[in-house]
Amino acid sequence: MGNGLQDLRERVFRANLDLVAKGLVIETWGNVSAVDRARGLVVIKPSGVPYDRLESGSMVVTDLDGTVVEGDLQPSSDLATHLEIYRCFPRAGGVAHTHSPAATAFAQARAELPCLGTTHADHFHGSVPVTREMTPAETAADYERNTGRVIIETFRDLDPAEVPAVLVASHGPFTWGDTCEAAVRNSIVLETVARMALDTARLGALEPIPSHLLERHFRRKHGPRAYYGQSRT
Amino acid sequence: MGNGLQDLRERVFRANLDLVAKGLVIETWGNVSAVDRARGLVVIKPSGVPYDRLESGSMVVTDLDGTVVEGDLQPSSDLATHLEIYRCFPRAGGVAHTHSPAATAFAQARAELPCLGTTHADHFHGSVPVTREMTPAETAADYERNTGRVIIETFRDLDPAEVPAVLVASHGPFTWGDTCEAAVRNSIVLETVARMALDTARLGALEPIPSHLLERHFRRKHGPRAYYGQSRT
Amino acid sequence: MGNGLQDLRERVFRANLDLVAKGLVIETWGNVSAVDRARGLVVIKPSGVPYDRLESGSMVVTDLDGTVVEGDLQPSSDLATHLEIYRCFPRAGGVAHTHSPAATAFAQARAELPCLGTTHADHFHGSVPVTREMTPAETAADYERNTGRVIIETFRDLDPAEVPAVLVASHGPFTWGDTCEAAVRNSIVLETVARMALDTARLGALEPIPSHLLERHFRRKHGPRAYYGQSRT
Amino acid sequence: MGNGLQDLRERVFRANLDLVAKGLVIETWGNVSAVDRARGLVVIKPSGVPYDRLESGSMVVTDLDGTVVEGDLQPSSDLATHLEIYRCFPRAGGVAHTHSPAATAFAQARAELPCLGTTHADHFHGSVPVTREMTPAETAADYERNTGRVIIETFRDLDPAEVPAVLVASHGPFTWGDTCEAAVRNSIVLETVARMALDTARLGALEPIPSHLLERHFRRKHGPRAYYGQSRT
Repeated sequence: MGNGLQDLRERVFRANLDLVAKGLVIETWGNVSAVDRARGLVVIKPSGVPYDRLESGSMVVTDLDGTVVEGDLQPSSDLATHLEIYRCFPRAGGVAHTHSPAATAFAQARAELPCLGTTHADHFHGSVPVTREMTPAETAADYERNTGRVIIETFRDLDPAEVPAVLVASHGPFTWGDTCEAAVRNSIVLETVARMALDTARLGALEPIPSHLLERHFRRKHGPRAYYGQSRT
Repeated sequence: MGNGLQDLRERVFRANLDLVAKGLVIETWGNVSAVDRARGLVVIKPSGVPYDRLESGSMVVTDLDGTVVEGDLQPSSDLATHLEIYRCFPRAGGVAHTHSPAATAFAQARAELPCLGTTHADHFHGSVPVTREMTPAETAADYERNTGRVIIETFRDLDPAEVPAVLVASHGPFTWGDTCEAAVRNSIVLETVARMALDTARLGALEPIPSHLLERHFRRKHGPRAYYGQSRT
Repeated sequence: MGNGLQDLRERVFRANLDLVAKGLVIETWGNVSAVDRARGLVVIKPSGVPYDRLESGSMVVTDLDGTVVEGDLQPSSDLATHLEIYRCFPRAGGVAHTHSPAATAFAQARAELPCLGTTHADHFHGSVPVTREMTPAETAADYERNTGRVIIETFRDLDPAEVPAVLVASHGPFTWGDTCEAAVRNSIVLETVARMALDTARLGALEPIPSHLLERHFRRKHGPRAYYGQSRT
Repeated sequence: MGNGLQDLRERVFRANLDLVAKGLVIETWGNVSAVDRARGLVVIKPSGVPYDRLESGSMVVTDLDGTVVEGDLQPSSDLATHLEIYRCFPRAGGVAHTHSPAATAFAQARAELPCLGTTHADHFHGSVPVTREMTPAETAADYERNTGRVIIETFRDLDPAEVPAVLVASHGPFTWGDTCEAAVRNSIVLETVARMALDTARLGALEPIPSHLLERHFRRKHGPRAYYGQSRT
């Protein structure tokens, strides 16, 4: 195994721990993966191992069909969902899944998370969608892969690079990004804006942000005319 | 006293402290016990001793009728409730009682905690039930034992191994498990899913998860076809 | 100054810091005092001094009329409220005042905090009352003393030893106890049960606990037939 | 650069970190600035730099037109809003901007934060206002400066020294004060009273504090007849 993959295992390991440090997961819930597209390999957290026993060497390496190619442990039971996302969203370099409480509340209410303010608009280009409910047949066989499929279906008319997050109905959020670190950051931001939306709901109906303000804030941080942050040139 | 029981005192002591570390109890509230079925002995926290003065030697050992057989302190005033659970739920190896805030909110609303999503379904096979209110007579004499009895009555048509938790009306949660550590873990998960349910309630009526999804998630983690986690063979 | 009073300054100092450690106060809000009834002296926090600059020597000693008898600093601006409580509630040995958020929410809603469950009943014998609004005249002159008077008026038909807490309308909670440590503990418990009540309110109307259960729990911990905790004999 | 400005960079640096320590900002959100009116210079956080890489030397110095006069980094993208506040509120010595969750909930609901109790009245002389929505034209060009202008417009009939805070509609709070430390303190207090107001909203409609009580509390801490705290003479 080349150094590149060793680096990726270390990064995926740290990204998983970051979810715990940020309070997004408890117990063994949640998982982060990254893909190395050049080699066609995915690195993912093992299933059901307590976070305090994880080390970078416990990360599992699979190919894009989910066959374990390195590691002694079983991969996360959500692996097939991650793989479906990598297959259909070609720019995704990392995927994160949590049961973070505020985002999960929207998933449990089967409600999309509307864009209520600039905090949201700075990171997500509009509502974070909720999937449709899965059918009994989709749940009975190939459940985790079908979870991925229903996510893809939800993005039929959406750009996953502009809204790198989804709420799986009755389940919880998945996020992605260029890297596994970006995927985790999107999970953190999603939980934050979901919590703000729950607080806003205490004050009345949820009114989306005007579209011109949404555009302004999203484009301030993303794309060719972004001017937030330090120059990358 | 054999080493086995000394180990159990240490474990019950640590399980009690874990409730504090996880933020589930304040002051001297809450108590954890474990049963050694081979010897017919129960180890439980003493009553009303501040957590920072507890040590494994302060744990109280009683028989299954509640007679203290070892220890200088009074056992938890909720002992009789624990004993009733051990008597009627033969697979329970540990019991935990807290006043954790979100679960207690459901108990105070005298409302069952419905299964709203997969976080809940991964751990509890359906709603966590609430007991009926106790009568004045049940409260006047043998109150703690009657609390146990009303819990048992609530499980007349439920499997306590599949739903290892209950909300005692106007009071708070009791949980159990194979071990005292599992009982504490169930208290943590219960509080987490109760908090998510309170957040979900801000977004409208509480709609239970579809039954096929409940089955899928519960069976993914429990029983002969479980595939979550690492192989135990 | 005798050693006894030095001890009391130390205890009042520590009780004030405990409010901060428990998260009940931010900035310079909140104050704790204690009375030495034998000497007719009160020890209280100085006004507006940041908590990280407080030391036991900054505590201010006054007589029961509020005249400073020791200390270089101005006493808490709420001193006159504390004095009124000591004057009229002869068993109060300590008083605490916070703007803890959940209890303050009830004060701002000008709503009493009903007894919704055993967590509350274990500590307070029924609802924690809210004062009436103060009149413009009561606010214009002698405001802090009048705050104390309206507290006393609220307890005309209540026993302050059984309900050692009050919500001052549009303001926040005051609590008391045998000692300043007990007053602080009552502030912590009050905030906890107020938070639980706010969570319970998300699930529907607030229904008080049945009176037989209230009696059982309060008497389990208080008075001649108490059996919670370790024997005091 | 004189020592005075070096001191101000250090203070602005520390004030920015204080926002993080108090939990008001996550990621790179939020920014604090201070003005040196004698020199006509402003010190502000750079844009989009992670807080753990900030040092006092990363603070950016600009003139009152926003031209960078010292520092290698781009200033906060909200600089023009800060400058507009300094230009129109001559007593403002520091400005803070956060996306703190409870205050942002009010901004997202496009609702002013009413004064519900003495915690609020001790710090803000009445409601914290919300701006009107900005027009598409105001958003399209000169957006950040126009954000400042709409803040100023909101204070046409208000004294910014008595209500040193505003909620920008669909965005979040800006606060100011004599110094950058006072601006940060006002952000902390604003978040605290906004959180209390959200909790109060769970108990029914939000009723403002009676005006005589508002006056009493605000004047207890502010202006010539203030008697809270230690004498400044």
